Amino acid sequence: MNDNALPAGQAEMQDFFLEIAAACGPETLKYFRQRPQIANKEDAGFDPVTEADRNAEVIIRKLITERFPDHGIIGEEHGDENTDARYCWVIDPIDGTRAFISGLPSWGCLVGLKIDGAPVAGMMYQPFTEETYLALGSGSYLLHKGGRKKLETTTTEKLSDAILMATAPELFTGERNVRFAAVSGAARLTRYGFDCYGYAMVAAGNIDIVVESGLKPFDIVALIPIIEQAGGIVTGWDGSPATEGGDVVAAANRDLHEQALALLA
Amino acid sequence: MNDNALPAGQAEMQDFFLEIAAACGPETLKYFRQRPQIANKEDAGFDPVTEADRNAEVIIRKLITERFPDHGIIGEEHGDENTDARYCWVIDPIDGTRAFISGLPSWGCLVGLKIDGAPVAGMMYQPFTEETYLALGSGSYLLHKGGRKKLETTTTEKLSDAILMATAPELFTGERNVRFAAVSGAARLTRYGFDCYGYAMVAAGNIDIVVESGLKPFDIVALIPIIEQAGGIVTGWDGSPATEGGDVVAAANRDLHEQALALLA
Repeated sequence: MNDNALPAGQAEMQDFFLEIAAACGPETLKYFRQRPQIANKEDAGFDPVTEADRNAEVIIRKLITERFPDHGIIGEEHGDENTDARYCWVIDPIDGTRAFISGLPSWGCLVGLKIDGAPVAGMMYQPFTEETYLALGSGSYLLHKGGRKKLETTTTEKLSDAILMATAPELFTGERNVRFAAVSGAARLTRYGFDCYGYAMVAAGNIDIVVESGLKPFDIVALIPIIEQAGGIVTGWDGSPATEGGDVVAAANRDLHEQALALLA
Repeated sequence: MNDNALPAGQAEMQDFFLEIAAACGPETLKYFRQRPQIANKEDAGFDPVTEADRNAEVIIRKLITERFPDHGIIGEEHGDENTDARYCWVIDPIDGTRAFISGLPSWGCLVGLKIDGAPVAGMMYQPFTEETYLALGSGSYLLHKGGRKKLETTTTEKLSDAILMATAPELFTGERNVRFAAVSGAARLTRYGFDCYGYAMVAAGNIDIVVESGLKPFDIVALIPIIEQAGGIVTGWDGSPATEGGDVVAAANRDLHEQALALLA
């Protein structure tokens, strides 16, 4: 990916992502770990995570539209607009709603940018741990506690040495369950939970591979460039582009990706 | 529990736990998320999590022995000493080693204190998120970002409204799997992953119940008072004390505990 294709320079892109994170953080944390306080409102039909998701999406859309009025936006809560534009943002303010309602810091605020249909920049921001995983067109970075670290995926060559992650075993049904079990059986270790945080761990070289099913575009578009620009590969189980979601495999490198596809395709 | 039974006042107990946390944090974080850097050493038989666990346990034992020379200590890596003493510390510097090696912040440093065999004080410290969950004899607290919050479990009355957590589905085999599936099937939502962090979430009122199997004493002793002093109940699946580990259920309140035991016992 050529930097010049980005709608702003790398430094400006980083600043813009951090501006979104700064707005998204308080709006989501306001409802995080507030279960005892809002239990009564929940009984009355109030859904805190949907409320947080909706409010944060409005704020993110406003920031994007002010800065880039010609760009398209795809979001979970407030629909699609101007999706024929060359630049299109794909957003999910709270990816991992089940983790969110359980008080677990594995959800994240996802903001991705597609250019001509290809994901080229993205952010996974975890407001509680204050970790920001960014892809800026030609590299991925973790911003945490004032530091900025370039991310690199692992060089693990064999699936039998690999740490595998999936959000939940019940995601896989029927034939998909058989195929996932084949990968899990071949891996050194399988962990569940962690949603978008698991993909960030692949980018950061902590785990080797994520296999999931039933994803929506806004679950994955922001994460694709973060993993790819750290050295990894993200595709469908059949090797096709993962930008539309569905059955997705995110691997640290080409070796692991090939071995996983041989079991999944 | 009478405060007077503690070997020091509440404020001193808190300070002592925080002293342990301050020593344990750097010693464990030094090996956390260092997989790419230590991969070559791993090939040579170096096990970073065991190394971190061992080193941190030595430091914690030293702090306890200096402060309370007559107390007993039970630890995973360096064995038991003086366990006939009235006061006995039970420690696991890295509970959740699989999370640790996967870069996931759901492991914790566990330090519990038993008096006459009963767990009366404890700490779950997560060095990466800088959360310290403490039980100080008559109350449980979360210390985070300079704040100190008293913890309360949920009042969720029905298992069908409850959020259930277990570390991994493969923990349960044979008949245990059938019983766990009964609880999981009755609950509103089941989440996997998160190890000791899941128990802290019960104490903090974020989730309602944890069901696990195959625990060691040092996996659970520190967590029992944190949950109990926040209003919850921790026992074996048959209602017996959980201090020796084994099959454990940790529930937010008596209602949920009874409903879970009816399916587990």
